[in-house]
Amino acid sequence: MKARVYVTLKPSVLDPQGKAIHHAVEGIGYHGITDVRQGKYFEVAVDGSLSPDEARAEVERIARDVLSNPVIEDYRVELDSSTEA
Amino acid sequence: MKARVYVTLKPSVLDPQGKAIHHAVEGIGYHGITDVRQGKYFEVAVDGSLSPDEARAEVERIARDVLSNPVIEDYRVELDSSTEA
Repeated sequence: MKARVYVTLKPSVLDPQGKAIHHAVEGIGYHGITDVRQGKYFEVAVDGSLSPDEARAEVERIARDVLSNPVIEDYRVELDSSTEA
Repeated sequence: MKARVYVTLKPSVLDPQGKAIHHAVEGIGYHGITDVRQGKYFEVAVDGSLSPDEARAEVERIARDVLSNPVIEDYRVELDSSTEA
């Protein structure tokens, strides 16, 4: 079973890396882009012996404790439904 | 309109950062995780004057040319449907 974890900076937190990308993208001539924010993305493969609920709980804990900094970041966990059964 | 870009290492490419996370997660006592791979995630805000098709084409170009290294990485673009209309 596979889970996907998305970690993004909270909207109130400045994202200098995203700003740099936005600036670069404008500099090389792309138009119509008003903002870029960068986050992190993790694919976590979970042992098939866990139920989907257990797997989600385990990955949520890892996302909160290891993969994100809850002071400045939000996280979102998705279980891959195609491999959930 | 908002687009999300996911950049992941191709499956054949080693991911030492993901391996380090996997090792750390096991070391602090999480069970049932068989693999972790890290990728990048971008939220790109697109000017509302572009049609959804134009916006997708523009973001696809940026994903290919700027946000990813096509030699070792794959990318995926999603237009946020809630803001697509």
